[in-house]
Amino acid sequence: MAQASKGYAPLQERISKEGRVLPGNIIKVDGFVNHRVDMQLMHELSREFLRRFDTTGVTLVMTVEASGIALASAVAADLGVPLLYAKKAKSDNIEGGLFQSQIMSYTYKKQVTLLVSRQWLSDKDKVLIIDDFLAMGEALRGLTEIVSQSGAELVGIGVAIEKGFQPGGQRLRDAGHHVESLAIIDAADPEKGITFRD
Amino acid sequence: MAQASKGYAPLQERISKEGRVLPGNIIKVDGFVNHRVDMQLMHELSREFLRRFDTTGVTLVMTVEASGIALASAVAADLGVPLLYAKKAKSDNIEGGLFQSQIMSYTYKKQVTLLVSRQWLSDKDKVLIIDDFLAMGEALRGLTEIVSQSGAELVGIGVAIEKGFQPGGQRLRDAGHHVESLAIIDAADPEKGITFRD
Repeated sequence: MAQASKGYAPLQERISKEGRVLPGNIIKVDGFVNHRVDMQLMHELSREFLRRFDTTGVTLVMTVEASGIALASAVAADLGVPLLYAKKAKSDNIEGGLFQSQIMSYTYKKQVTLLVSRQWLSDKDKVLIIDDFLAMGEALRGLTEIVSQSGAELVGIGVAIEKGFQPGGQRLRDAGHHVESLAIIDAADPEKGITFRD
Repeated sequence: MAQASKGYAPLQERISKEGRVLPGNIIKVDGFVNHRVDMQLMHELSREFLRRFDTTGVTLVMTVEASGIALASAVAADLGVPLLYAKKAKSDNIEGGLFQSQIMSYTYKKQVTLLVSRQWLSDKDKVLIIDDFLAMGEALRGLTEIVSQSGAELVGIGVAIEKGFQPGGQRLRDAGHHVESLAIIDAADPEKGITFRD
């Protein structure tokens, strides 16, 4: 079993204080992560990622729309490289020439296709993937697939909150990826609250 | 007719250099605004918004997922206030207690509902709305409607790129809003290129 990453105390404290557990293992952090977003916190998490990954030569931060964008944009700004976010459906504004990956969205209970223009990702790129949540890991698996299609180098995957009781994190680590989750939740119970891995 | 905002030269130059016009008046800036995002540029645009609006007492920057988030997160970070982004469809992770507004999405050619939790917006808030694009103005109209439902004060609406040949900007200005667009495009032709308002 690959080494799990260590919890980042300021994030864990914030989750303990303001996060809520809803039936169905839903962890609600929409007051500071994925609806109202505390950008100061996002930049703190960003700096923690930059301590944990060797970002030398990184050319691109990648994420998936929509909830990953705020955190990933903080990391891209702090690194001084562009952000590239995969889109989830074909709109008129994306033409041909696309990297694609089919994933299952458990939030929306349907298959969605991740799309990235071939114009903005190539084998010259060195990529850091960032997302707010890791549960089943489908969005991140899709992103790693797209990075692999492009021939770009993947430095690692930085995640704010991992649901450690769901298999996504383990699958990505077993696939050989360097995954850093700043808070790994091992149990979430509406009555007993949230238990972190360390 | 309300005064149109003045163009911001660094953005106009970037659009002239890297933007492309597709048939159907589509202005493609997906290399630096809404797919791959130049976060340095987003922070430059942010600082320009902070010069143009009186942001004293602003408590919240609001936008709509997904393409508004990168720019709005830069503004929220620079202002030191949270970002609040309206969601576009009901997922399991948003419970009741919602402000809602029905808008027409011309990108996806269907009606969508904007959702904001009542928990994160109230009559104590003073809001600056930020978005990357203004064309028909539906998303921004929806946001102003939600701000109005909440009783919050609206300082203004900051937009990166306005399609001046579509009616959204004029409608928002006619409704009495302070709209600042950093680049207003008056004509976009695949052959003749892009013409800015000033």
